Amino acid sequence: MRSPSLCLALAAGLFGTAHAAAPATSEAIAVQLRDRALAGHTVAYPWVSELSTRFGPRPAGSDNEHQAAQWAVARLKALGFDNVHIESFPITAWVRGSESGQITAPGRQPLTLAALGESPPTPAGGLEGEVVIFPTFEELKAAAPGSLTGKIAMVALRMVRAQDGAGYGAAFAGRVDGPQEAAQRGALAYLLRSMGTDSHRLAHTGTTRYVDGRVPIPCFALSNPDADQIERLHALGETVRVRLTSGASYVEGAQSQNVIADVRGRERAQEVVLLGAHLDSWDQGTGAIDDGTGTAIIVAAAKLIRDLPQKPERTVRVVLFGSEEVAQPLPPGSAFGGHAYADRHQSELPSHVLTGESDFGTDRVYELALPAAVADGAFAKSALRVLQPLGVLSARQPAEDAGTDVGPAVEAGVPAFLLRQDGTRYFDIHHTADDTLDKVDREQLEQNVAAWAALVWLAADSDVDFRAHAAPPGAH
Amino acid sequence: MRSPSLCLALAAGLFGTAHAAAPATSEAIAVQLRDRALAGHTVAYPWVSELSTRFGPRPAGSDNEHQAAQWAVARLKALGFDNVHIESFPITAWVRGSESGQITAPGRQPLTLAALGESPPTPAGGLEGEVVIFPTFEELKAAAPGSLTGKIAMVALRMVRAQDGAGYGAAFAGRVDGPQEAAQRGALAYLLRSMGTDSHRLAHTGTTRYVDGRVPIPCFALSNPDADQIERLHALGETVRVRLTSGASYVEGAQSQNVIADVRGRERAQEVVLLGAHLDSWDQGTGAIDDGTGTAIIVAAAKLIRDLPQKPERTVRVVLFGSEEVAQPLPPGSAFGGHAYADRHQSELPSHVLTGESDFGTDRVYELALPAAVADGAFAKSALRVLQPLGVLSARQPAEDAGTDVGPAVEAGVPAFLLRQDGTRYFDIHHTADDTLDKVDREQLEQNVAAWAALVWLAADSDVDFRAHAAPPGAH
Repeated sequence: MRSPSLCLALAAGLFGTAHAAAPATSEAIAVQLRDRALAGHTVAYPWVSELSTRFGPRPAGSDNEHQAAQWAVARLKALGFDNVHIESFPITAWVRGSESGQITAPGRQPLTLAALGESPPTPAGGLEGEVVIFPTFEELKAAAPGSLTGKIAMVALRMVRAQDGAGYGAAFAGRVDGPQEAAQRGALAYLLRSMGTDSHRLAHTGTTRYVDGRVPIPCFALSNPDADQIERLHALGETVRVRLTSGASYVEGAQSQNVIADVRGRERAQEVVLLGAHLDSWDQGTGAIDDGTGTAIIVAAAKLIRDLPQKPERTVRVVLFGSEEVAQPLPPGSAFGGHAYADRHQSELPSHVLTGESDFGTDRVYELALPAAVADGAFAKSALRVLQPLGVLSARQPAEDAGTDVGPAVEAGVPAFLLRQDGTRYFDIHHTADDTLDKVDREQLEQNVAAWAALVWLAADSDVDFRAHAAPPGAH
Repeated sequence: MRSPSLCLALAAGLFGTAHAAAPATSEAIAVQLRDRALAGHTVAYPWVSELSTRFGPRPAGSDNEHQAAQWAVARLKALGFDNVHIESFPITAWVRGSESGQITAPGRQPLTLAALGESPPTPAGGLEGEVVIFPTFEELKAAAPGSLTGKIAMVALRMVRAQDGAGYGAAFAGRVDGPQEAAQRGALAYLLRSMGTDSHRLAHTGTTRYVDGRVPIPCFALSNPDADQIERLHALGETVRVRLTSGASYVEGAQSQNVIADVRGRERAQEVVLLGAHLDSWDQGTGAIDDGTGTAIIVAAAKLIRDLPQKPERTVRVVLFGSEEVAQPLPPGSAFGGHAYADRHQSELPSHVLTGESDFGTDRVYELALPAAVADGAFAKSALRVLQPLGVLSARQPAEDAGTDVGPAVEAGVPAFLLRQDGTRYFDIHHTADDTLDKVDREQLEQNVAAWAALVWLAADSDVDFRAHAAPPGAH
């Protein structure tokens, strides 16, 4: 990994100086923004520190999420943003309740587990059954109907560590569809080896999927060492039984909300560059890296732009989405904050010129993907001149989507960019109680702010049409 | 850190070959033992794997501890040891029960904590109070009587990481004496920042001390990130209140046990080299590194010696102690397995020629400390010739003690040796739920077995008097 300190030296020395002679160009201002962020003149770390400390976990629809949104409004106003307001929307919330797991045979041992999001509760006294282990989710799906009657199905697939987080996608179906597939074969409950790359006794929760308005059976993530233990007991020839309890519940008619703040463009304010991150978090950690740092990065980047002597031509809009983590019983089922925004702002979406989302932790940006329309043009070349000293290369493929929250806007035609972050260690912590401030690497956080501030400035202070499906004239 | 692979190459190549020409000497046999262990021909990993998998946590006095002792007897007999038997003794056991912690003001946030060993329960509905933070235990002890009435005292000292584990000793008083000192000043409960060097949401439990037969108030270890969170809320100017519940209980008249196995000496069998480790463990992990690997190391080392064509002159005795982790209401208060052994074998202790204990995880041995009587003599020189290729240097000071379990024997005059292990990462895991098999580094485990097998052979196949207070004639 490239050292952020090296990046800082390169940026401040080589590029900063070289471009200081041309202060009036948009690219030179991007360089200044980048270097200010690297020098630590951003609000990112104090933002994520206070957010994750003061409110801790911020599950969608919870008091903590509401209070964090109020706090964000006050902070964004104090930072000088325009048009700061909350847009609320209704959701069905999910509350974990007390839960426990235990191996009951061949001996008694406690299990570290966490109900998956939207899991129904167990009966009050818990439930117990023999564990049937499937090495992969595909093998569970190949099991015969009725073959799991009275049993507890377990998918033991271990998530693969990868810089781009590809292991998460490869394991994802086992979490969202596993309960349904196990229930169809008669299972009492469903256990999933955590979608996590660590080896700690911390389970990785995450949402499942409602089918016909319900999640059919209680479902839990086991920590990696607990999944190992069950597999080893099985390998010793033992029949493993476990007891599971969960007091999870649903709250109908809860409210979540998006928080909006603008840096109003000086010339074409109706044209919006939309930056997204989410304010809600899972309930066991404190939402520091998922997604406190994402909110910090986009707020800090926009704040640097806001503080320039001259605003960009287009509006930069920050949206701190609510209710990103949890599924909903009714369609569209996910990204409720994103859908609420796209629905409410439907008429404005044609003038949303570009969007990106920061929701992959704190570690450094290593790659830029732009919309196909500009992937090879002058805009891309300028952006990479500014970003490469940060250790950012051009992606091989243009961006087609940008994340969950801005997904509905992208589906509605808003072009997407990606500042891909190094996810090598992201899934050690993701969706666990371990998502706490101490995991934030401040130097890498500032590198993110630098990349976002520079790129967003270049896009907002331009008239580039990111929507065009052929490269515009003169782009090469 | 010296690479174990390099050690292996050095040992097999340079030393193994050089000494192969003199097979009849005791030192040459020590070299063979060392190299067999490095080649992986030991029972250590399968031992710790099955022990920690089959029985999981083994709290003193629990069914799991009893069953693990029965299993150990069967395995030790199958491995060909002599005199394999159990020696039981009564204890007061402590059972965690359900427990929880929550910040209740300024907002609600869950806390990750663990009752300290022997903590009394809270009232059934829990207890709640304002947290008073002390940076160090000394500052708590300087607080005025009555100054903590109705409050919850918290000691926030962060344990220091050190190769030799010195940070543990520096923080230890805060754990064993903290509840008593806080109670004397009126506190409702006592919170301790975990004695651990990690930053995970896993609390490090550990024993407190009975005073007049009781632990006065409920006491808990907070995970490091939780202690950080409370400190940061305080720094934001907030008054922090927490709610604590614990359903801990005591079991009078429980039984624990030591498991004993010998390699009977061929000439002076009444002379014993005593090797100790403990079979009990804390209740949240599976006792893999504390002290499953210790038991594995001494069993594997003794097994290598047992399988030699010629037994050593003296007896090698393995004792897998029970009830090492927990305090007891009555004197001597600790090391009940060690005291039970010393009491029952009192008449034999004068012919226990040397003792050592393995209870510091799995990582490599880096230093040998011998009794003062032999620290500079021919025995030490021979031992270091064999051990240095493993990366083991001579300690600057002779050994005065060797650990908790063999402590009572050492107090009764048995000379001690230390094979000091690298404790740099030990306290990341120690006394947490994270003490699981995946933390065991197999190469370093085998290096330990190599060092123990070689050193114990040299001591047992000799007539060296480790007790003598002056160097014996000819030792130089």
